[in-house]
Amino acid sequence: MVRTLMAEKITPRAQDFSEWYQDVVAAARLADHSPVKGCMVIRPNGYSIWEAIQRDLDARIKATGVRNAYFPLFIPESFLKKEAEHVEGFAPQCAVVTYAGSKDLEEKLVVRPTSETIINAMFAKWVQSYRDLPMMINQWCNVVRWEMRTRLFLRTTEFLWQEGHTCHATAAESELKARQMLKIYTQFAEEVLAMPVLPGRKSESEKFAGALRTYTIEAMMQDKKALQAGTSHDLSTNFAKAFGTEFLDTDNTKKSVHQTSWGVSTRLIGGMIMTHSDDKGLVLPPKLASTHVVIVPITPKPDLKLKIFEVCDQLGAAIREDGAVRKLPYTLGLSIDKDETKSPGWKFAEAEVNGIPIRIEVGPRDLEKGQVVLARRDTSEKAFVPLAEVPATVARILAAMQTELLAKARKFREENTHKVSSYDEFKKRIEDGGFFVSPWCGSKESEAKVKEDTKATIRCLLLDDEFRPLESGDRCMITGQESTKDRPNVLAVFARAY
Amino acid sequence: MVRTLMAEKITPRAQDFSEWYQDVVAAARLADHSPVKGCMVIRPNGYSIWEAIQRDLDARIKATGVRNAYFPLFIPESFLKKEAEHVEGFAPQCAVVTYAGSKDLEEKLVVRPTSETIINAMFAKWVQSYRDLPMMINQWCNVVRWEMRTRLFLRTTEFLWQEGHTCHATAAESELKARQMLKIYTQFAEEVLAMPVLPGRKSESEKFAGALRTYTIEAMMQDKKALQAGTSHDLSTNFAKAFGTEFLDTDNTKKSVHQTSWGVSTRLIGGMIMTHSDDKGLVLPPKLASTHVVIVPITPKPDLKLKIFEVCDQLGAAIREDGAVRKLPYTLGLSIDKDETKSPGWKFAEAEVNGIPIRIEVGPRDLEKGQVVLARRDTSEKAFVPLAEVPATVARILAAMQTELLAKARKFREENTHKVSSYDEFKKRIEDGGFFVSPWCGSKESEAKVKEDTKATIRCLLLDDEFRPLESGDRCMITGQESTKDRPNVLAVFARAY
Repeated sequence: MVRTLMAEKITPRAQDFSEWYQDVVAAARLADHSPVKGCMVIRPNGYSIWEAIQRDLDARIKATGVRNAYFPLFIPESFLKKEAEHVEGFAPQCAVVTYAGSKDLEEKLVVRPTSETIINAMFAKWVQSYRDLPMMINQWCNVVRWEMRTRLFLRTTEFLWQEGHTCHATAAESELKARQMLKIYTQFAEEVLAMPVLPGRKSESEKFAGALRTYTIEAMMQDKKALQAGTSHDLSTNFAKAFGTEFLDTDNTKKSVHQTSWGVSTRLIGGMIMTHSDDKGLVLPPKLASTHVVIVPITPKPDLKLKIFEVCDQLGAAIREDGAVRKLPYTLGLSIDKDETKSPGWKFAEAEVNGIPIRIEVGPRDLEKGQVVLARRDTSEKAFVPLAEVPATVARILAAMQTELLAKARKFREENTHKVSSYDEFKKRIEDGGFFVSPWCGSKESEAKVKEDTKATIRCLLLDDEFRPLESGDRCMITGQESTKDRPNVLAVFARAY
Repeated sequence: MVRTLMAEKITPRAQDFSEWYQDVVAAARLADHSPVKGCMVIRPNGYSIWEAIQRDLDARIKATGVRNAYFPLFIPESFLKKEAEHVEGFAPQCAVVTYAGSKDLEEKLVVRPTSETIINAMFAKWVQSYRDLPMMINQWCNVVRWEMRTRLFLRTTEFLWQEGHTCHATAAESELKARQMLKIYTQFAEEVLAMPVLPGRKSESEKFAGALRTYTIEAMMQDKKALQAGTSHDLSTNFAKAFGTEFLDTDNTKKSVHQTSWGVSTRLIGGMIMTHSDDKGLVLPPKLASTHVVIVPITPKPDLKLKIFEVCDQLGAAIREDGAVRKLPYTLGLSIDKDETKSPGWKFAEAEVNGIPIRIEVGPRDLEKGQVVLARRDTSEKAFVPLAEVPATVARILAAMQTELLAKARKFREENTHKVSSYDEFKKRIEDGGFFVSPWCGSKESEAKVKEDTKATIRCLLLDDEFRPLESGDRCMITGQESTKDRPNVLAVFARAY
């Protein structure tokens, strides 16, 4: 009973990008809808990507002096209300426990949408003196935000994330920490997810409820829409004042701590999929793969089967033991698919759908010539490679794939990022998607107008230290307001977004 | 401003074991009470222990072919009710979300107390044929069970755990899997936590709500009370039938899958503490420590300070690079405490309270003799060690400490485990604590009588393959019933428990 080629049907991107995304997630068995509205199940293939993300990012976070901890899932309703903007932002999205242990609760408990409040209740107890600062903590956990329209990984009622929370003695230090974490997210997204991101600041209307400043990394998906991929907030003393998180400074006076918080979530997996995958299914940067190489024996003639299996085993061992392979920054995952109930064609399609970076075919004719067929998932290139050169080729391709996926995505973003100066031009071109960079006067009204007219939003304001400051004389594309020294415009990135 | 010796005050075990436990947890800053009743905060020192547990156990679980996944936090109330015994067992402990997104929910959502039901809803969809079996999944997550009386790590309303869930084609396979995981928990507890455990089966009245059979590992704490440290259940087809989790077998008929579930939690940290720690604070098996060695420079004379700091740095590097140290099954954590605002005495007490396995003191007098003082946390032994021998000594002591902590705890358990044959003798001796092994007739009434008379419970029934089967003629210590071939008594372990 040999299974024949039955690639899961994947809608082409050009036909329906949204359907395509769902098909890729389903075919690679990354996640599934659960019977609980808006909540997803992350299946083993998807969860192993999250594990790779956690492993790498966790080490980067710890290298900045942050330690992991765990805080309660439940937040007393009164805590959420202590910071006025915060409760306004989150209350409509809260899931609330009203009875427990067969009794109505005296105080309702909110399932954490984020943990600034409950963590500040502990910080207020733990922080006493300047000696206790900086206090820097991170937690990996689940959070719940009731959403009307959900999509696997991208927007779900419950999601997994890490949330970092830090306390500092001065405003300069908290600002520095918020920027440092933005930089770490940027490097992580590019070096591991191979997903280029634009770091910037959120406008007042888009910032985190309770923050002084919100920084963000914004990625461009293949449909040219923006995805907010991570945020880092300078909370100033807003939560510290609400919760009395104070320290005795060296000058013997009590002061509120300056705080940050920052997080990335399972949404990153959705962003990574929409950055790299194609009409054949998932494309995975090697750093996120758990299986990097699949060897498929092709055995049309029964008498050669054992010989071919033997060559596959030897080749697998040679790849695993290769010096260059062992120097890769991950443990190589390699499988040899000897399942005789499935056809080679079925296995090829399966490997493609699942995003396995390299497929090696070992058949009788190639074997005579002492070579194998090596297929690269991202470019679909196939090449004959002499047996002895396979291990080094595998190492070279895996390293190349990681950087080339990033370069390709960066090129795509650059080709679809445009400077515009006239609002009419913007309104016309936004219909084709992409990022649009323009001076902006900073008024709430003009920001709202863009949203109403075009459904696009300001994704971020570009950071001064990374982009040329605006010269006097630039004009806001919406209001036409001229940039002056006293009231400078800022460079804003406009796009439609997930 | 030099801090003088101010060891956190720890109540001696002999005075009040329960106070002692809380003092150890507080002094080592492992966990803290949160403002949410019964929910704990796991602080960085405690969470790093949980991370060490996760790293090691996760690899053992995966080595059996299980993969990690993630299922929703919320369970529709109707799901919990599908398995009759299950809902009876868990409903009184449930926390329930009744409104979310500012609306009353049509169906209430229970915060998962365990995930058999929601996972079976997915298994029912994913399992189609015998080819899909075994399906073996694990998740690391938080669960909530409303508790009246809580204690940090040991019993909290919310806790962290792993829960494995598997589907098999036959009853023999699910039974084998449940037993395999019991064995893995046993090995893990002994090899990593250095906590000896007694594996066994739970009586009918103590088994998991919905299981056919529950296996358990039971540990003895230093107060001679038992702690249930992990459980593994053979669920038979109970949940599969409730959720319609069926597969098409090779004989072309539909059959219910046979399932297991198994879990250990942050409770293990509490058990580990109560197994090894002493009146000076935490004692940590090296495999769970993140800092293994602290080097304390002693610098009474300012002119020698830099010289001593230099020796400490060189010694630290020599230890890290030592061949035997690098062969240890963990990355050595080493810190050199040069903080001049704190006294050596304060640092010694701090290292003891935090359970750092080895402390090295480097002072001017020892330095003249080319030696250091090396203090071992578990035995309190102090020895002069020539500088050149320190790295090898560190490696030797860390390896020895791991096995000796286990041996010491095992000896303690054996000394406090007694065979009893008369109920009067048992009732008298149980007052001193300990495990009591006796034949038991298996009747619910006699089990209830023991609990009422003595507050002791049956911790487990010893497994046949590891213990001598009872000879005909043994008598139940409670009812006096004689063991016969047709109705054999079983060997039961009685103890008071956490």
